[in-house]
Amino acid sequence: MFRASRTSATVWIVLLAVIAGLSYVLIGAAIPPASAQPQARAEVVEFTLDGKLKQPVGYRKWVHVGTPLTPKELNDDEVSEFHAVYMDPASFDHYEKTGKLRDGTVMIKEFASVGSKEAASGKGYFMGEFTGLEASIKDSKRFKDEPGNWAYFNFGKYPLKAEVSKEAVDSCNSCHQENAKTDWVFSQYYAVLRAAAPRSK
Amino acid sequence: MFRASRTSATVWIVLLAVIAGLSYVLIGAAIPPASAQPQARAEVVEFTLDGKLKQPVGYRKWVHVGTPLTPKELNDDEVSEFHAVYMDPASFDHYEKTGKLRDGTVMIKEFASVGSKEAASGKGYFMGEFTGLEASIKDSKRFKDEPGNWAYFNFGKYPLKAEVSKEAVDSCNSCHQENAKTDWVFSQYYAVLRAAAPRSK
Repeated sequence: MFRASRTSATVWIVLLAVIAGLSYVLIGAAIPPASAQPQARAEVVEFTLDGKLKQPVGYRKWVHVGTPLTPKELNDDEVSEFHAVYMDPASFDHYEKTGKLRDGTVMIKEFASVGSKEAASGKGYFMGEFTGLEASIKDSKRFKDEPGNWAYFNFGKYPLKAEVSKEAVDSCNSCHQENAKTDWVFSQYYAVLRAAAPRSK
Repeated sequence: MFRASRTSATVWIVLLAVIAGLSYVLIGAAIPPASAQPQARAEVVEFTLDGKLKQPVGYRKWVHVGTPLTPKELNDDEVSEFHAVYMDPASFDHYEKTGKLRDGTVMIKEFASVGSKEAASGKGYFMGEFTGLEASIKDSKRFKDEPGNWAYFNFGKYPLKAEVSKEAVDSCNSCHQENAKTDWVFSQYYAVLRAAAPRSK
């Protein structure tokens, strides 16, 4: 039986309403709104209003897929040496599940010089300093006219450019299209990608 | 003025109580309990009851700090070639803030063979297959008698061992102690670590 006076009831209602309201605010803070959830678009990078790619940040915490090395002494030009290659984590997770590179995939290629050529672990090649930065992005809306919907960006050598337009198709895309094994990506050189594909499990 | 009947008041109180209760459950699901928060101990890896390290998992999504290369043709032994080195993300975040390797830091060294020696990007060295796995762990409680509190583990070549005891100090630790620049870690070869240290910013 309910025995409380009207006044007590009012106090209880107000109290519970405050708790309910407070809870709603706390839930709002704890659960990101739908607009903050991962989406299929390339949202880990930013573009200027006229479509230039801003210099990516945070990519050294993305998933490293491999680091080829093309030492200058084996090549005729000034092409740099270590190329550490990263994929954005959400796209890597998608690749792990499906073996496909999703719309919105961003890959980063960060160049580094050869520093030391001898260490306690043997003679060889040890990373020196960062020298350059490139990116490739698959986006079927933004790059609907690019082969495979992949666009390529080159921020040059240090000091890097703050923002760049996409490269001409002949600069990067056509070579990737011709030689890369998996959807414009050189998975043949990336043991991490090969091992992560569902068919390898 | 409060005009509702006692019955209406009861309904409202029950309704608000249900909302408050439901909100509490939802908040509980959205915010992990304190025990699930990151701690300073090496908890990203597991040990057997007799102190062996179980084969680490998931490290390819940790923070890549660098990939030295020691090609067989430049060395006399069968030491393998690419060494991709990773640090667990929470310890990397701590390093970014402090420049220090925290108690609980886990580092992984994953070996890969040289596959191709020529690609569209030039002549050089491109990753083949994974060949071996090693780990180092700083833990002042578990490894209080090791120099620097660092212990080293070698899972051998593929097929990897499921669990291993720590190596003798002479096998790894003493060389790291003598030659590594930052707290038993060869930061001189890891551009990512050097760039992440607070003094570099």
